[in-house]
Amino acid sequence: MNRLRQPLLSPRSVAIIGQSNDAAKTAGRPLHYLRQAGYAGRIYPVNARRETVLGERAWRSLADLPERPDHAYIVTPTEGAVDAVEACGRAGVPVATILANGFSEAGDEGAGRVARLQEVCAESGIRLVGPSSLGVVNLREKVLLTANAAFAEADLPLGRMFAASHSGSLIGALVSRGKARGIGFAGLVSVGNEVDLSLGEICAATLDDPDIDGYVLFLETMRKADHLRAFAMAAAARGKPVVAYKLGRSSEARELAVSHTGALAGEDDVAAAFLRDCGIARVDTFDGLIESLPLVARVPVGSARAAVGVVTTTGGGATMVIDRLASSGIRVEQPSDATLKALADAGIVVAPARLVDLTTAGTRYDVMKPTLDILLAAPEFDLVLAVVGSSARFHPELAVQPIIDSAGAGKPLAAFLVPEAPEGLRRLSDAGVPSFRTPEACADAIIAALRRHPPKPVVARVAPTEGGCLVDELAAATLLDRLGIARVPAVAMDADATRAPTLPFAYPVAVKVLSADIAHKTDVGGVVLGVKDEVGLLDAVAAIRRNIAARQPDARVDRVLVQPMIAGHEVLVGYRVDPDVGPLVMVAAGGIFTEFYRDRSLRLAPVDLAEAHEMIAEVRMLDALAGRRGQEGGDIAALAQAIVALSRLAITGDPVVLEAEINPLIVTASGALAVDALVKLA
Amino acid sequence: MNRLRQPLLSPRSVAIIGQSNDAAKTAGRPLHYLRQAGYAGRIYPVNARRETVLGERAWRSLADLPERPDHAYIVTPTEGAVDAVEACGRAGVPVATILANGFSEAGDEGAGRVARLQEVCAESGIRLVGPSSLGVVNLREKVLLTANAAFAEADLPLGRMFAASHSGSLIGALVSRGKARGIGFAGLVSVGNEVDLSLGEICAATLDDPDIDGYVLFLETMRKADHLRAFAMAAAARGKPVVAYKLGRSSEARELAVSHTGALAGEDDVAAAFLRDCGIARVDTFDGLIESLPLVARVPVGSARAAVGVVTTTGGGATMVIDRLASSGIRVEQPSDATLKALADAGIVVAPARLVDLTTAGTRYDVMKPTLDILLAAPEFDLVLAVVGSSARFHPELAVQPIIDSAGAGKPLAAFLVPEAPEGLRRLSDAGVPSFRTPEACADAIIAALRRHPPKPVVARVAPTEGGCLVDELAAATLLDRLGIARVPAVAMDADATRAPTLPFAYPVAVKVLSADIAHKTDVGGVVLGVKDEVGLLDAVAAIRRNIAARQPDARVDRVLVQPMIAGHEVLVGYRVDPDVGPLVMVAAGGIFTEFYRDRSLRLAPVDLAEAHEMIAEVRMLDALAGRRGQEGGDIAALAQAIVALSRLAITGDPVVLEAEINPLIVTASGALAVDALVKLA
Repeated sequence: MNRLRQPLLSPRSVAIIGQSNDAAKTAGRPLHYLRQAGYAGRIYPVNARRETVLGERAWRSLADLPERPDHAYIVTPTEGAVDAVEACGRAGVPVATILANGFSEAGDEGAGRVARLQEVCAESGIRLVGPSSLGVVNLREKVLLTANAAFAEADLPLGRMFAASHSGSLIGALVSRGKARGIGFAGLVSVGNEVDLSLGEICAATLDDPDIDGYVLFLETMRKADHLRAFAMAAAARGKPVVAYKLGRSSEARELAVSHTGALAGEDDVAAAFLRDCGIARVDTFDGLIESLPLVARVPVGSARAAVGVVTTTGGGATMVIDRLASSGIRVEQPSDATLKALADAGIVVAPARLVDLTTAGTRYDVMKPTLDILLAAPEFDLVLAVVGSSARFHPELAVQPIIDSAGAGKPLAAFLVPEAPEGLRRLSDAGVPSFRTPEACADAIIAALRRHPPKPVVARVAPTEGGCLVDELAAATLLDRLGIARVPAVAMDADATRAPTLPFAYPVAVKVLSADIAHKTDVGGVVLGVKDEVGLLDAVAAIRRNIAARQPDARVDRVLVQPMIAGHEVLVGYRVDPDVGPLVMVAAGGIFTEFYRDRSLRLAPVDLAEAHEMIAEVRMLDALAGRRGQEGGDIAALAQAIVALSRLAITGDPVVLEAEINPLIVTASGALAVDALVKLA
Repeated sequence: MNRLRQPLLSPRSVAIIGQSNDAAKTAGRPLHYLRQAGYAGRIYPVNARRETVLGERAWRSLADLPERPDHAYIVTPTEGAVDAVEACGRAGVPVATILANGFSEAGDEGAGRVARLQEVCAESGIRLVGPSSLGVVNLREKVLLTANAAFAEADLPLGRMFAASHSGSLIGALVSRGKARGIGFAGLVSVGNEVDLSLGEICAATLDDPDIDGYVLFLETMRKADHLRAFAMAAAARGKPVVAYKLGRSSEARELAVSHTGALAGEDDVAAAFLRDCGIARVDTFDGLIESLPLVARVPVGSARAAVGVVTTTGGGATMVIDRLASSGIRVEQPSDATLKALADAGIVVAPARLVDLTTAGTRYDVMKPTLDILLAAPEFDLVLAVVGSSARFHPELAVQPIIDSAGAGKPLAAFLVPEAPEGLRRLSDAGVPSFRTPEACADAIIAALRRHPPKPVVARVAPTEGGCLVDELAAATLLDRLGIARVPAVAMDADATRAPTLPFAYPVAVKVLSADIAHKTDVGGVVLGVKDEVGLLDAVAAIRRNIAARQPDARVDRVLVQPMIAGHEVLVGYRVDPDVGPLVMVAAGGIFTEFYRDRSLRLAPVDLAEAHEMIAEVRMLDALAGRRGQEGGDIAALAQAIVALSRLAITGDPVVLEAEINPLIVTASGALAVDALVKLA
């Protein structure tokens, strides 16, 4: 990746193709910003119609340059951009970044342009950033190869975070907001449409940079998710944390992603499961994206059950954060008796509560410092949050400085300052202390840091395929048998039989149509439950035939399946190959619960038993498996085994299953039995 | 209320009882801040042990002062504070504010002090702010009667909002954060424990102040909710909007409210229903509390179905807001064809999408201004949001100024600036344009403004009572009959009968124990469903007697109720008198749905039919009443009538019902029938 990194982010020479003579225009900015920042490399403005631009010599074409530039930023309009890429390819330019839009998001015409770009890449070996890229920035080497207006300022702080964004405008927001917070970046890239280089590849190219400690990502789609996953795994291996903000919780935002980036965006909980299994911490606030990395870096992965201790000089201010943490299921704990005694021994008297409130003890260095040290040493806390009230604004020496002085202890210590206190925040950030401007970003970052999981190794990769074909329920049953998932016994019966078969189980029974033509049997009247005897069985078959003849007349109805009625908890367990993120396994409460409450848990497949148990714990309705108010519980271990077994479709490639849904899996007190399964083969 | 307002907020003279000589100490601040601000009234520092404080003459006691001060700020420790209030009462001081804590939140000892304060109030007529009050601030008249360290700065901007807070620290955060955002306050009060003057009374005292346009409240409890409601109604009558941030979404935060304010806090959705029915807009972010009032003031009440149009120079930045709005059910709409044509006629070409993205058209005044004017004139939009990218930081003239210039049109126009752009935000705020620093606060304010309801008139007030007694199901049935709520027919049967009675309805039937001793019949095996015949009925009665003898042996089981089995949608409709907010009506999906998903809707009772329909729409599970995939719908009108009827318990005072729960109410295709009811009388 270093062969990419150098021309991409440390070019010794750059060409700006289409550089305008008007510094106020978008196409006029790159030269201006590079000069203002003091970029030490050679800059070749290319402008076919002018001798000079912004007072410098302009070159008529790429062919006229005295050397082959390392990196070309193409800021021409759309049509010229494709020609410029071709010229760069011919000239052997290793990397080009394209500003124009009109590609992936622009229908058939755009698709044609994309195809041309991809041809040039294949033929010449050039790598492309964009199109629709506002540029590439390396602040350490003053490579401000960008058209984003926010880079007009000279004194952007240098930091150790690298940012990559699907939105070009957002890289400007990140640097300007970071600057106001005393937080700097090492570099930023607007990745645009990712026609060639993906966000994951660009970040991966920087992984060995010793001046980069971690990554912040602004995501609009999961395009090229495999690259992102490979990057995240490699980052985790180097101990470099990755934080992401992702648009698309709503279908409206996903719809906009198509028009904005040209990529379809999948459902949000799929993206969430993917990010989680990549070991990426997902934040939900924009300030959180800027502020959270120092905390994420300090909290060990896999801390979801960690306990947070909170100390404050303002009860109301601290409770704003606690309220959000607790609502998200984070454990905010009261100090132990031993800790309260240690505080009392140090002369600090606080009421026993889920918050160490120093209001009465006083806002003083000699109160805050020993309190922090005692809490950081207390075994009951895994993370300590200090919330400072009004004193933080003009007297950071009272309660902010002790946070800086205590932060060296092994345990993570974070700070939220309740008043406007930019200087206090800057001091904290300069000292590397995770610190937050709003209660929302503070809670967001703590939740993201504690919820971060270790990345899952890529065990297998079943490629997504279009189409696929349904198999009938007996064939599905055979697949379940091979996976080792127990089934409710079933007897197939001809739909035109005039006598009920002898059943190896007792009545009452369920009768279901057996047809590969029918995906949703209930919708077409293809299921009759609670059939009491042989007469009822023949009646049920007749009713099913009538119903289907009326509602889906083209479906074949040769046979029905007869199964015993089993009482238990109904669970839906599903597997599918997602076009973006690959094989996924899902567990849900099933039926109306999933429909109204979206009560489901997803993971990249395959999963192990521990993950299956986590998934079960995430589905609220499945709390009922523990047994409640006079109702029988369920065999959670058997359910977990079934989830693991189904998820292994991701590594058993024969046959290639695109989709498999067990609905319901009946979880009884002593097992889990598949009642019905729908399977789609590639 | 003007008699209170003058000494409370416009005192001509103040005494500071316990004023310290050390300006760095909390008790040293008020004199310093008043002098620094240039308060024009007379100030009497009272200090029993010193001749001078901070270079000024100190008075030995209240009795030594040459006049009776309008307002005394008592900054002594706890015990001295009670004595000082007594002295103030004797001296005829009209208002005193108490800094010390150690009252409502301090157990029995604190309760004794509260009782003494209340005695003084009753005897002398003095009105108290606090205890635990960081003070009272009137910025226009430079009354900085506060010990909050954030008031140490001299140039706090004056505004037209009045703030009241249960947390004293937060008034400092509000002014300092407001200042950084170019947003000022008229006044702020830290209301403390509300032992005498409540937050509602304090705000109400300022209602006729022509320099106050609206209110922001930071709430930790719903203590004295009736005062808050009366204030909110009066504010609405004067067209002065009220915005509130309320802690307590989590049980952990509600637990902290007890230790912090000495008040029990009820469940959060009860508070939400109360605030809504008071016409108070509730925000969920702290920035939103500071920034939202100008927007709330401009959006007509009752705009929940309003459509939002969004225009932007940055697709990613705008989608951050849209994602949050859409996830909360706010309608973000695409421009109509007519609007797109009007834009095209003005030379502004945008792609038809749920976002008017000007990236291609260009970030220019002559693009943004006509676009805003066209969107504001378009009938399909009720509110327009402009989201400005990087240009907002250094070139507000391009896309921020047009927002200011277009904001005069009748329709609300709001702005979110994506980069750090304090000057742009200040310009917007100075011009009165609703404007936001973060996507989260922007979405929060839009949601709060659109969801604001007109306040409900106080129709009746059934006072909450402790205790109460359950009545048996037949008595409950009589109450339902009086309310006009239809019931499933029921026959009572002696539990020791040896023959089944003749039933006026067909089998199968349900059999339920009839006993006022048993609140949850199912939990003790007191219900048998689906009884098929007379033999089964006698068996069921025997089984119920056995179950109860085993599980609740002290309960009397004289009779059972027999009812027909009715198929339909099960709904829970409840009524209760909440100790904080008074009579409430609830509708929920019932059973496990309420248990796992808290899928319920609450309103202050009584409600009318329109409100009942809104409540039904808020319960996700009740979407099933519309009928889905081969399942029968339900009679929504009959359910709404039942909700209205039950809610009228709030105005029918005979008998006084503390709690009534119909669970389930079975909603069929042609009606709604109560199957079971639990009633608790006062």
